[in-house]
Amino acid sequence: MRLNDYWVSYPVELYPSSVHYWDMAKPSPTHAGTPVLIKLGLRIRSLREAQGLSQESVALGAGLDRSYLGGIERGEHNVAVVNLEKIAIALDIHLADLFK
Amino acid sequence: MRLNDYWVSYPVELYPSSVHYWDMAKPSPTHAGTPVLIKLGLRIRSLREAQGLSQESVALGAGLDRSYLGGIERGEHNVAVVNLEKIAIALDIHLADLFK
Repeated sequence: MRLNDYWVSYPVELYPSSVHYWDMAKPSPTHAGTPVLIKLGLRIRSLREAQGLSQESVALGAGLDRSYLGGIERGEHNVAVVNLEKIAIALDIHLADLFK
Repeated sequence: MRLNDYWVSYPVELYPSSVHYWDMAKPSPTHAGTPVLIKLGLRIRSLREAQGLSQESVALGAGLDRSYLGGIERGEHNVAVVNLEKIAIALDIHLADLFK
């Protein structure tokens, strides 16, 4: 374990007790709002809604946190391939279809 | 600047002096070798070689380190969307084509 593992960037008491601050992914400080992420987020939302699925159910199917998926749909996270594949599987589509 | 910024994980003297250790991306400890990353890496290599391009020239076009691109082609890095887009642009293909 490294020193950094103890480092906390914001006061825990700012969050409601039912939400664990360590589960909450913050928007990417460098990439949130990047056009390619906004476009991907809208695409994922559109594919999800076309199947009448909730964020909760897709997140559950993908093994991701609901709020993280919400952030992805808002273009806040620079998602990497392993999580992209999980989302594609949860939506029952091919990975390439996320970028069409 | 945080304490962690000074943290060095391996002895600098292991590397030749022309290579800066802080530029060298290490394989993802959790995802290196994941099938989807291996497949993506082979696909990128195949697209690059089909155009007769070197890793150097594609990395230069994408604004990435040559050794990082090499690691991606070996399936060692869980690449995120922003870098995937840079690679697609450098290869002059659509982002979705990286996953076909």
